[in-house]
Amino acid sequence: MDQSALFTITYGVYILTTEVDGKMNGCTINTLSQVTQEPMRVSITVLKKNFTNELIKKSNKFSVSIVSKNASLNTIAHFGYSSGRDVDKFKDMPYILDELNNPVVEKDCIATLSCKVVKDIDLGTHNMFIAEVVNAKKLNNEEPMTYAYYRDLKTGKVEQKKDNEKKSETIEKVKDVYECSVCHYIYDGDIDFEDLPDDYICPICHKPKSAFFKVN
Amino acid sequence: MDQSALFTITYGVYILTTEVDGKMNGCTINTLSQVTQEPMRVSITVLKKNFTNELIKKSNKFSVSIVSKNASLNTIAHFGYSSGRDVDKFKDMPYILDELNNPVVEKDCIATLSCKVVKDIDLGTHNMFIAEVVNAKKLNNEEPMTYAYYRDLKTGKVEQKKDNEKKSETIEKVKDVYECSVCHYIYDGDIDFEDLPDDYICPICHKPKSAFFKVN
Repeated sequence: MDQSALFTITYGVYILTTEVDGKMNGCTINTLSQVTQEPMRVSITVLKKNFTNELIKKSNKFSVSIVSKNASLNTIAHFGYSSGRDVDKFKDMPYILDELNNPVVEKDCIATLSCKVVKDIDLGTHNMFIAEVVNAKKLNNEEPMTYAYYRDLKTGKVEQKKDNEKKSETIEKVKDVYECSVCHYIYDGDIDFEDLPDDYICPICHKPKSAFFKVN
Repeated sequence: MDQSALFTITYGVYILTTEVDGKMNGCTINTLSQVTQEPMRVSITVLKKNFTNELIKKSNKFSVSIVSKNASLNTIAHFGYSSGRDVDKFKDMPYILDELNNPVVEKDCIATLSCKVVKDIDLGTHNMFIAEVVNAKKLNNEEPMTYAYYRDLKTGKVEQKKDNEKKSETIEKVKDVYECSVCHYIYDGDIDFEDLPDDYICPICHKPKSAFFKVN
């Protein structure tokens, strides 16, 4: 079994948000698929430990924004690397409310979908939500960011060009990059990953250091 | 509702195969996702009308090959544009048998997965199969073909480079390209799509001409 075979599957980068009883939250996911056209339905998978998952279980609705290839890595980090249990992710993040009252992120995105959950499938570590798309909005004609491109940006393999062709401020140097095999968190601390203590755990899904693999 | 928003989701191109009672078949799909890491499970969605779907319902197993960016469009067409009810797709196509006795296509692919179905979800026009990955094999380090790139190849927006940098023989001219919104079949007949009779139906999923949209 060569687990790296699984990394050849093509994923995107998406910002998933919801709202319940006035509490809003969002996180990043890499799986979103259209599953049927009539009716128009999509599927997403979310780590059960995520606060957003907990909220969607109550709200039965979500918005998902398709992240642009030109997006700032800071926007992705904003939604990906902290928990809504600890911080209000919408405090300094612009959003609009859709007809389902989800906070929709348009910054750095190319399209948004508003969705009502119709099926909830327990997958052990993750939940899969199958949802009807009640509204869809195209924001611009930029390309979507693939997860492979995001990983290449993080590892410094490629440099992100802005529209004016200036180099991105996010690329500093190429160093070994480690990614959690369970939740796909990419370690980006100042200390080299190898030098982290043995009891280091993934800040997102709490898996041990051994669950990380070297990306580049 | 802007349906084109859905086209920004990142998909790949995959060859899905199975075997039951000695009968083998395969088709192309564009949705494959890893859904959990422990246990290692993936999801696929298949049009119910597909013969491969019918066989997987009986066999409860499948192999899926991740198509290379450098793949010949003929290989994709071989699995995508005819039904195993009418032709034996493995007659002139090389394959190997995996431990589940699935015929595995390695030609033009970069990785293969052997999977046992653990859950079957009825989605109306499609079935979703959630399956445990019992073996995974990386074949080479080529890039996966994304569905967007495949569409660009078909529409002549990009030209496929072979390793020796010769132009692909598959690109002829840029003309209007139409795609079925339900099964993603891309019309590639000699007659311009606009000139087809009004009662033209999709050869794959049998939807009417009106279900097609212009891609380029």
